[in-house]
Amino acid sequence: MKVITLLTDFGEKDHYVASMKGVILSIAGPVMLIDISHEVPKFDVRAAAYVLRCAYKYFPAGTIHLVVVDPGVGTERRALAVKTRQYVFVGPDNGVLIPAARDDGIVRAVSIENRRYMREAVSYTFHGRDIFAPAAAHLARGVPIEELGPEVDDYVVPEYAEPHIEDCEAEAEVIYIDGFGNCATNLREDDLARLGIKYGDEVELELEKRRIVTKLLPSFGYARPGEVLLLINSEGFLEVAVNMGNAARELGVRPGTKVRVKALR
Amino acid sequence: MKVITLLTDFGEKDHYVASMKGVILSIAGPVMLIDISHEVPKFDVRAAAYVLRCAYKYFPAGTIHLVVVDPGVGTERRALAVKTRQYVFVGPDNGVLIPAARDDGIVRAVSIENRRYMREAVSYTFHGRDIFAPAAAHLARGVPIEELGPEVDDYVVPEYAEPHIEDCEAEAEVIYIDGFGNCATNLREDDLARLGIKYGDEVELELEKRRIVTKLLPSFGYARPGEVLLLINSEGFLEVAVNMGNAARELGVRPGTKVRVKALR
Amino acid sequence: MKVITLLTDFGEKDHYVASMKGVILSIAGPVMLIDISHEVPKFDVRAAAYVLRCAYKYFPAGTIHLVVVDPGVGTERRALAVKTRQYVFVGPDNGVLIPAARDDGIVRAVSIENRRYMREAVSYTFHGRDIFAPAAAHLARGVPIEELGPEVDDYVVPEYAEPHIEDCEAEAEVIYIDGFGNCATNLREDDLARLGIKYGDEVELELEKRRIVTKLLPSFGYARPGEVLLLINSEGFLEVAVNMGNAARELGVRPGTKVRVKALR
Repeated sequence: MKVITLLTDFGEKDHYVASMKGVILSIAGPVMLIDISHEVPKFDVRAAAYVLRCAYKYFPAGTIHLVVVDPGVGTERRALAVKTRQYVFVGPDNGVLIPAARDDGIVRAVSIENRRYMREAVSYTFHGRDIFAPAAAHLARGVPIEELGPEVDDYVVPEYAEPHIEDCEAEAEVIYIDGFGNCATNLREDDLARLGIKYGDEVELELEKRRIVTKLLPSFGYARPGEVLLLINSEGFLEVAVNMGNAARELGVRPGTKVRVKALR
Repeated sequence: MKVITLLTDFGEKDHYVASMKGVILSIAGPVMLIDISHEVPKFDVRAAAYVLRCAYKYFPAGTIHLVVVDPGVGTERRALAVKTRQYVFVGPDNGVLIPAARDDGIVRAVSIENRRYMREAVSYTFHGRDIFAPAAAHLARGVPIEELGPEVDDYVVPEYAEPHIEDCEAEAEVIYIDGFGNCATNLREDDLARLGIKYGDEVELELEKRRIVTKLLPSFGYARPGEVLLLINSEGFLEVAVNMGNAARELGVRPGTKVRVKALR
Repeated sequence: MKVITLLTDFGEKDHYVASMKGVILSIAGPVMLIDISHEVPKFDVRAAAYVLRCAYKYFPAGTIHLVVVDPGVGTERRALAVKTRQYVFVGPDNGVLIPAARDDGIVRAVSIENRRYMREAVSYTFHGRDIFAPAAAHLARGVPIEELGPEVDDYVVPEYAEPHIEDCEAEAEVIYIDGFGNCATNLREDDLARLGIKYGDEVELELEKRRIVTKLLPSFGYARPGEVLLLINSEGFLEVAVNMGNAARELGVRPGTKVRVKALR
């Protein structure tokens, strides 16, 4: 049975996600529908791209990942289907698919234009239901990606801040705050190696105007309840956390907050 | 594989929805369970009726739509199963099923009374688990609707406000606010035609005491970020929205807020 | 088709639950994945144990219940799989599984230690994905529980407050507040019988410093809108509720709030 995942900013309250699922089941018959999230902050393409990149690779090869975080719906932005080494990604051409797709290796991208694979009446405001869900459903029932429209290679690529690393110091920023208040930064595991920081080391952390001396620890349980710590999160990003607490709230961190990390030796 | 959708005001936090799903799977074996929403405002039969009416028709013919928004649980209100041209609806007799069922065309309604198709012990407070979920599950495994109980035709029909239209002006009201803060009104696409309003036209909008000159636009992307606009939403209702913003919050709109719409020419 | 339920405190926003589901589907192939809840209050083992105990028994025999509410992740706490008369429970050894498992009857508990049934790289922070989800998936595809690791019988057993009952008076406490604001206490149906309280009886309720005369009623609909009432909830616990209202908010009740119940005759 084919797996289709869904990732949107539609929220859990309204009928939007269910309408998409109904459309998929009506076209593709029984498929396994798995929600990645519908609580991505509204219109936040960058957060959705991060969440997708974190989750996509745990699914069986052949899974179709359907993403609708689409502030440009109804304008001229294209609709994309992207075949990678193991998966297919379907969503708007606003960069949301690309970090995950590139991580897996892009084989071919097409602009979804063939009206035969859309709902008969395409609304201006709900392409999730009228274009993206039908495309994913037709792919699930075996329609080749080339049928959906012409190949393109000028898709939108999101630009993310790269951390700046010099000697024993890094300037980075918070790119995602999860539901526990853990703050993922754009520093990766190997950046820490370059900084010479290993588990148990003391680290000076500067969050905008606040300075904290903390430690890189293997997991929450190594810190006291309420204590600030640094972690490598499960996707390999450096994370600022508070054991049994909410780091974002307690430290006043938001997506985009600058973080300076310095090894103390 | 049969599809059963679930629509409740139980929220996502508790075990109530899961208990219903467990009951269904125990009776019907493998069926496809799709959540429409469990975040309908508590006890809000009108909002649930709107959400159901928006979503039901995208599902494959034969889908069973199970709705438990049931402020009268434990009192004398009846339990209904309603067969329509393509679907079956199951839920309390408080009007929540009727707008969707009528939209599809009611074939037969029965009052669920046959204890053979309920859980052995029926609680006073959780008919979702003890009456409605078992009814849906038995229908999914092929029990004819007539088996559930006697036919009825005096089911509760909700009364919704109809907009008042005169010349180039309409008095309407907000009937649903979605998770983006978009405010659906009870004005429909053809009401706008009667008012002579078409895409691109300027419109005077009066929201309780506030007056705004805005435009009917095909989609969010045609407005500037933060700008108020009018849309025909994906279900054909006129909607007050703010591009990249939350109209309900920014304009102080609530369900029931009066809206006056006037063509400017 | 095997059923696996999921109960976590991960929230609906992030990719954590989806990653676990992807891992399960990759190992076990098509299984039915049913969410019990992901909105259990963070780190609240007691609430999760209550929710699990309420929901587990409605599922078909053979269902695997996977629970990840795991404040001790990354420390030395063990990972458990517990076979009961009809189900298998998988989760951390912090007591969360035990009230449900005991209710069904524990047959055998093992400490999950066999790395063959874990993901290749086990992170310090996400055992849900790396240990618990793979264990559940391998069990679903038929691996015997004994394969996962050595049998144990010294698992953590949570201690819950027992109500204190004397004559016509009981000292109890609130153990769970649901999404409607209903406040479940640790008083059970038969405790009320011992107190001589039956439906319709007047009861004096003392909530910390507040005293209310109310009634034990069969369901919400027997009270006026806004009125405080006592109910036996659908799992047999005494509940303080407000018809069409939110008892926890209106009465200032929290988990752990002391409740004194006294029959008035």
